[in-house]
Amino acid sequence: MSKYSIGVDYGTLSGRAVLVNVETGEELASSVYEYPHAVMDEKLPSGKKLGHDWALEHPQDYIDVLANTIPAVLKESGVSPDDVIGIGTDFTACTLVACKADGTPLCFLPEFKDEPHAYVKLWKHHAAQDKANKLNEIARERGEKWLDNYGGKISSEWAIPKIWQVLDEAPEVYAAADRFIEAADWIIWQLCGVETRNSCTAGYKEMWNKKTGFPSNDFFAALDPRLADVVDTKLSRNIIPLGSKAGEITEAASKLTGLNVGTAVAVGNVDAHVCVPAVGIDGPGKMLAIMGTSTCHMLMGTEEHQVPGMCGVVEDGIMPGFAGYEAGQSCVGDHFAWFIDNCLPASYYEEAKAQGKNIHKFLREKAEVMKPGESGLLALDWWNGNRSILVDVDLTGMLLGMTLQTKPEEIYRALIEATAYGTRMIIENFREHGVAVDEFYASGGISQKDPMTMQIYADVLGIPVKIAGSLQGPALGSAIFGSVAAGSAKGGYDSVFDAARVMGKVRDTIYTPIPENVELYNKLFAEYRLLHDYFGRGANDVMKRLKAIKKSI
Amino acid sequence: MSKYSIGVDYGTLSGRAVLVNVETGEELASSVYEYPHAVMDEKLPSGKKLGHDWALEHPQDYIDVLANTIPAVLKESGVSPDDVIGIGTDFTACTLVACKADGTPLCFLPEFKDEPHAYVKLWKHHAAQDKANKLNEIARERGEKWLDNYGGKISSEWAIPKIWQVLDEAPEVYAAADRFIEAADWIIWQLCGVETRNSCTAGYKEMWNKKTGFPSNDFFAALDPRLADVVDTKLSRNIIPLGSKAGEITEAASKLTGLNVGTAVAVGNVDAHVCVPAVGIDGPGKMLAIMGTSTCHMLMGTEEHQVPGMCGVVEDGIMPGFAGYEAGQSCVGDHFAWFIDNCLPASYYEEAKAQGKNIHKFLREKAEVMKPGESGLLALDWWNGNRSILVDVDLTGMLLGMTLQTKPEEIYRALIEATAYGTRMIIENFREHGVAVDEFYASGGISQKDPMTMQIYADVLGIPVKIAGSLQGPALGSAIFGSVAAGSAKGGYDSVFDAARVMGKVRDTIYTPIPENVELYNKLFAEYRLLHDYFGRGANDVMKRLKAIKKSI
Repeated sequence: MSKYSIGVDYGTLSGRAVLVNVETGEELASSVYEYPHAVMDEKLPSGKKLGHDWALEHPQDYIDVLANTIPAVLKESGVSPDDVIGIGTDFTACTLVACKADGTPLCFLPEFKDEPHAYVKLWKHHAAQDKANKLNEIARERGEKWLDNYGGKISSEWAIPKIWQVLDEAPEVYAAADRFIEAADWIIWQLCGVETRNSCTAGYKEMWNKKTGFPSNDFFAALDPRLADVVDTKLSRNIIPLGSKAGEITEAASKLTGLNVGTAVAVGNVDAHVCVPAVGIDGPGKMLAIMGTSTCHMLMGTEEHQVPGMCGVVEDGIMPGFAGYEAGQSCVGDHFAWFIDNCLPASYYEEAKAQGKNIHKFLREKAEVMKPGESGLLALDWWNGNRSILVDVDLTGMLLGMTLQTKPEEIYRALIEATAYGTRMIIENFREHGVAVDEFYASGGISQKDPMTMQIYADVLGIPVKIAGSLQGPALGSAIFGSVAAGSAKGGYDSVFDAARVMGKVRDTIYTPIPENVELYNKLFAEYRLLHDYFGRGANDVMKRLKAIKKSI
Repeated sequence: MSKYSIGVDYGTLSGRAVLVNVETGEELASSVYEYPHAVMDEKLPSGKKLGHDWALEHPQDYIDVLANTIPAVLKESGVSPDDVIGIGTDFTACTLVACKADGTPLCFLPEFKDEPHAYVKLWKHHAAQDKANKLNEIARERGEKWLDNYGGKISSEWAIPKIWQVLDEAPEVYAAADRFIEAADWIIWQLCGVETRNSCTAGYKEMWNKKTGFPSNDFFAALDPRLADVVDTKLSRNIIPLGSKAGEITEAASKLTGLNVGTAVAVGNVDAHVCVPAVGIDGPGKMLAIMGTSTCHMLMGTEEHQVPGMCGVVEDGIMPGFAGYEAGQSCVGDHFAWFIDNCLPASYYEEAKAQGKNIHKFLREKAEVMKPGESGLLALDWWNGNRSILVDVDLTGMLLGMTLQTKPEEIYRALIEATAYGTRMIIENFREHGVAVDEFYASGGISQKDPMTMQIYADVLGIPVKIAGSLQGPALGSAIFGSVAAGSAKGGYDSVFDAARVMGKVRDTIYTPIPENVELYNKLFAEYRLLHDYFGRGANDVMKRLKAIKKSI
């Protein structure tokens, strides 16, 4: 009898479950549940207004995902709960729950129903920016060594700025919170009744390091004396590596989901990170780019190197036993959408309509026949700042080479090429700092829908581009971790590497570099790099000065 | 009884006459005649095919302009030919006629009817580019000093490359031509029966200088031994200053036009140059920008300075007694048209339509409420290369500062601002080389139709912008020169300065700099200048390298 694993992927607006055959990786059923409260960025359910840059979620929605999607995939597939050996989950991060010692979120308590700080702070809650700025300043002043593990800067999206904001703005909530815990770990607690903390979010979002632990209590005290004991009183020093089993389905969770009591539950994980085994990556040197509105790059290395400008390096951060590197580009799909919305002329819509074509298809047909360098255009893909490798939100876009003959499709292609050059900068930066990148995988919407872009990436990077075989990479990845939590004795796997090799999938189509294009793109990339360094490394800070003028008006 | 003067403006596709009251500058009548042969750039009237980059005209069309428009303005105004004291004309340049010693164009001769080189080479005939390149190379090698009077480079549009092309490709036409003469001078010959050569075209288009004359015969021999005597056998060393009388209407011209025999005829002139008195400019330090698809800048100075990057300096080149400076921007109206055609999204057309507004008006309304620097954008206006002050056709456009919030109207305004910065570079360059610019006048379509752009120019330049009072500036300017050819004894003027002060016109509306905008634009211009020099003066020749890659494909 075949065995199955369930993966549940918690996104920003919905949760999705898939049920996967652990011997083949075949996805038998999937189910999506949209969060009834969605993202609360204007008001609480009570109507209470939220401040600028707030983004909250309601933890009941996460429970409801389990209650709805797991019975649904069991039903759709016809698989018996007896044959489901494990469950894994992944979450957006840092998405932070404040709760009591028994796991009850503070917002469930009547006294905090109307208190914004008692709700879940979503990853894109940006209202703690001043705290992040102050944290970075103090860390730099004190010469904190862990700062270099995060490319020299931590983000307002991470845990400590968010916790510090609670302390400052709602000390009574801070006092009432027995725990601040990643939603990734909180949901596991709901499934197996055991509080665990996973190495991925601890490492990437809470500045924890396997060898050196958390930053010192002195450092936290330097932020605010009341934070001195934050790790011991609100977090946990007991960090579990990815690929571990957190526990087993409880009586209550069984009632909620229809899974058997005792089904293995994997430790919490993060959406981008679980995508890595989902494409079959089983070791170092293989980069996965998850390409959507922005791109997230995942890479494992045999050693922990401090690579300037990456988002983070965490031991066991992607798979156990390896240093997990994360990097990012903040403007990819968003970049192309901006062009379509703001720059594509009416005549193109009319022509597309006359030809009975979708505007994207029409534009791509014009762009894909062009040769590298044919347009004479070159762009810097910084419409939304530069995450890696410059870590500078104040950089802006640039486009160069326009003539009176320049056509919209040429600009469109130049923007796509710019994101590929940005990826190449990230790869070369890893290589220059001792981290090998030998293979390239892509997942996410763009990788599935846009062959022209993927061929451009292959030609710019000069290495083949392999494409994720599943349309629901994170959920598949979580199911892989679920099968590892179960272990081989139960019909699963004893390591995520073994599971990835069997259950991970890439498409048959591989985008192979075309030698003459590679040669042209090498020349063009040299120009990109020159402008990247000129505008991005201080030779001419015109972008920052223009932003300063803009802000002064 | 009032006295009148007629100005005839020969454009690229038509000729226009106006009849003007010399005591008030009032324009009483105007008439346009379109050239029946238009621009011949594909074939001769016989059907004979022309090569790439050719552009010819038919001299009969020029005669027909006189025969049609002058009787028409006399009739429309009801003015008696007895009260018309003078006529002036202006032409595109260098527009070159090959003719016999009596003025008969070679193309009128049966033996040359089917010979392209026997027709008039229009200013935009670009088929002599290789000759211009070779001429520049030889002039540089020989250290010819006059080269610096033309910003270091002469154009393929000018006389010698065109004549050299005739010699090379049709030596029998070269041999048969007793004269190569500017159409500006040829038309005067038709009116008064006397061959004259004006200082403007001789200076700007034939490398003549009032003090040093033409380049040496040695130089011409270095181009081609057969050209050694070109000045003495085909051109003329007898150059007449602008503002002079060339002669009087002949019997034949009287029959053609209806003007009285003996009416004064001014020496030939050029369209851009006659616009200067038409706005009332009467001396140095007052720049006129003629703003259309491209912009031409006219300026007089008290001395002849060698200013890098201008199009030319010619003594008596604009008005007698002054050094006439010419500079240019090759992409102004064309720049904005490119944006409208290629970058303005369908949603804007729909919104404009819903509001019942013209798309230009709709866009301008969005752009004109913006403050300087508000968009965070900065552009280099080099979509068509840079004429002044970098004299480099291989430069291309650049746009910087884009974010995901950037809107089309912000880009549109940034392109307009870039052309204003380009004008300021030209002005500052003149000042830095000892040529004063104290006042700024604008004529041409943009000056009349686009108040937002003119206010941006005032704010960027930091000096008031005065606008031409006539919609037909060149024809009015030619009429001014006609009144000067007549002289005060006949009711006209003895100097173009006197005539300009009375007959020249600006509008009542003057665009005055707004101090807070000036301050912001000073900051933004500093950024423009930094990028101008970085990309334009060799620090990073990326634009040229991208063009080279483009050409290699």
